[in-house]
Amino acid sequence: MSDLNGTEIQRSPHFADEEDRRHVRDRVIFFSDAVIAIAMTLLALELPVPHGRTAAEAWHSFLELLPEEYLNFVISFGVIAAFWTAHHQYFRHIHAVDAALRRYNLGWLFLIVVVPFATRVNSQDGHFPLGPVLYAIVISGIALMMVFMALHAVRAHLLRPQAPPHAMRRLLVGAGAAAAVFLLSIPVSFASPS
Amino acid sequence: MSDLNGTEIQRSPHFADEEDRRHVRDRVIFFSDAVIAIAMTLLALELPVPHGRTAAEAWHSFLELLPEEYLNFVISFGVIAAFWTAHHQYFRHIHAVDAALRRYNLGWLFLIVVVPFATRVNSQDGHFPLGPVLYAIVISGIALMMVFMALHAVRAHLLRPQAPPHAMRRLLVGAGAAAAVFLLSIPVSFASPS
Amino acid sequence: MSDLNGTEIQRSPHFADEEDRRHVRDRVIFFSDAVIAIAMTLLALELPVPHGRTAAEAWHSFLELLPEEYLNFVISFGVIAAFWTAHHQYFRHIHAVDAALRRYNLGWLFLIVVVPFATRVNSQDGHFPLGPVLYAIVISGIALMMVFMALHAVRAHLLRPQAPPHAMRRLLVGAGAAAAVFLLSIPVSFASPS
Amino acid sequence: MSDLNGTEIQRSPHFADEEDRRHVRDRVIFFSDAVIAIAMTLLALELPVPHGRTAAEAWHSFLELLPEEYLNFVISFGVIAAFWTAHHQYFRHIHAVDAALRRYNLGWLFLIVVVPFATRVNSQDGHFPLGPVLYAIVISGIALMMVFMALHAVRAHLLRPQAPPHAMRRLLVGAGAAAAVFLLSIPVSFASPS
Repeated sequence: MSDLNGTEIQRSPHFADEEDRRHVRDRVIFFSDAVIAIAMTLLALELPVPHGRTAAEAWHSFLELLPEEYLNFVISFGVIAAFWTAHHQYFRHIHAVDAALRRYNLGWLFLIVVVPFATRVNSQDGHFPLGPVLYAIVISGIALMMVFMALHAVRAHLLRPQAPPHAMRRLLVGAGAAAAVFLLSIPVSFASPS
Repeated sequence: MSDLNGTEIQRSPHFADEEDRRHVRDRVIFFSDAVIAIAMTLLALELPVPHGRTAAEAWHSFLELLPEEYLNFVISFGVIAAFWTAHHQYFRHIHAVDAALRRYNLGWLFLIVVVPFATRVNSQDGHFPLGPVLYAIVISGIALMMVFMALHAVRAHLLRPQAPPHAMRRLLVGAGAAAAVFLLSIPVSFASPS
Repeated sequence: MSDLNGTEIQRSPHFADEEDRRHVRDRVIFFSDAVIAIAMTLLALELPVPHGRTAAEAWHSFLELLPEEYLNFVISFGVIAAFWTAHHQYFRHIHAVDAALRRYNLGWLFLIVVVPFATRVNSQDGHFPLGPVLYAIVISGIALMMVFMALHAVRAHLLRPQAPPHAMRRLLVGAGAAAAVFLLSIPVSFASPS
Repeated sequence: MSDLNGTEIQRSPHFADEEDRRHVRDRVIFFSDAVIAIAMTLLALELPVPHGRTAAEAWHSFLELLPEEYLNFVISFGVIAAFWTAHHQYFRHIHAVDAALRRYNLGWLFLIVVVPFATRVNSQDGHFPLGPVLYAIVISGIALMMVFMALHAVRAHLLRPQAPPHAMRRLLVGAGAAAAVFLLSIPVSFASPS
């Protein structure tokens, strides 16, 4: 039913005119960029400063923070950067944004906004699987949402006529693989001894 | 008088030319998007990390934070997302932004910026109605401002000629209903025993 | 010399073509909007939550925070909103952004970014004039920078041909008056008994 | 190999059409602006408020914070503003953004996002060279990345046909000099007695 709905919106589009269609698409992209940029930058906001009264102590503190806090920050930055690139590749090929895609996109942004929090939980908690599990759920959720968005774009005929024939295939494969890897990491993190 | 003023601005518009009109409209929308995106992302900034020395303790802490902090975050994200959608549907149909609409919009943004603060008050305060009351005032204020903006757009002839005839009606009904529900929740939260 | 420079840039513009000129102008405006939006939203980030174990205590705490923290937040939001409006009115009439205007604008943004900090200093310090003096310096600095920008636009012929003849006059009067009022408030805050 | 790749992408561009090319370029610039704006504004977020019970104490505290915290904030703001200007001058002359440039740009943004953290480390740590060394590494990294981006633009023929013949030269000289100065400051800060 949601399917039919999407297709119908596409067939008899509720856009007033060409300017309206472009305006809707551009604003959705713009708003997404702002949210992704903020989430990315906030990652660095709570990085702890290494402490120590001598140079040796400071370097020691720095090296201690490296594998947890600093590495997690770098990984999360890379993850958000990769998802921004995927989002960018996706919307390059989108002609019109319907109400369903707008909702998918807001859900996707919700999970992006949660990444800095999931990174903090992951950094502060080394003894039990809560951190890695939450992190894996959030990341695979973003990837899965991307899969749904790619499927919806094909089904609801939202692609640009100029888009290459298999524009969504690479995205489906990449996002699907990412979702699978992170979902599989969940039982592994429960099974692992540490 | 403010009415007359608005209509006059519309009749003899102070736009230098078409490029000026478009520039004014686009910048107001753009600036609003940036403010909404930041308010939305800041919601997650102060989410508390669950603590505990064992897995059981961490899950317990997580479950304790769930109904207050985490649920309130999800609700506020949903509320801002819904208002962004309404703002988006509104400006799709706006042809020209006059000085009065610019002021309404800044007032609307003020209340959006207050949402993360109202969410914090609501989360940290469970024993008396201050939190829910402040929250209800802010949310109904945003909805009411949206009603004023829709009425002003009709009165001051700010709509695009291509806009569907009842473009503002759905917005008026939706925002009006939201304002009514949240305003009604105020006396209820005083009356409720907890 | 800086004058001559500005005028020369204008006479033999270093823009490659029309697209380049527009790109430069749009990016300066866009970047400014993002900075202003973030400064505005960060104002609310450190608003203290009222505390208390009973409803009476919470209301009391709320009322105590009202004249300092909350009022200062509202004032600073209003100040930044007013300056955003002035910035918006200014750039509506700007045809080309030269290197000097780009530098003025970055200086202006620097002071905007300092507003949340000046607001915090003003809120936390009630017994001596440091807070009000810093605040008055920052606000009058923003207004003065606006005056310089308006003078520069006229001198370096940066205005759009379609701009009304006295496009900069209202801005000069408004920003000049704001600068004067806040500068005058400095000796007053030293003289005042509290 | 990466070279060949870049040139090939340029020769047989993967852009669907002119609109696609422009869309890709504009979104990369837009996203960068949002990230730079946030990093710039976050610098001011953790500026400490001067404390003291008398005016004399408050001024004393202010003067004490001046050479470390406040000066570092001003310097970092200036550094990010200078890099924004360089980024702006760079992209003015860019016609098409290929996958390699998108990656370079994300790396550049990563280092920009680290600047507020490096500033904090630099402010809180006065007794050993960790702070200045990290700061110098980050700043010279941003400048070096700019050099790579300029070289890549020339090599992969990404420049606009209308760009002046030596559009990248000034950028190469400026960014190269900045990278050299900051890299040279690292051994100096180890050798210096304080």
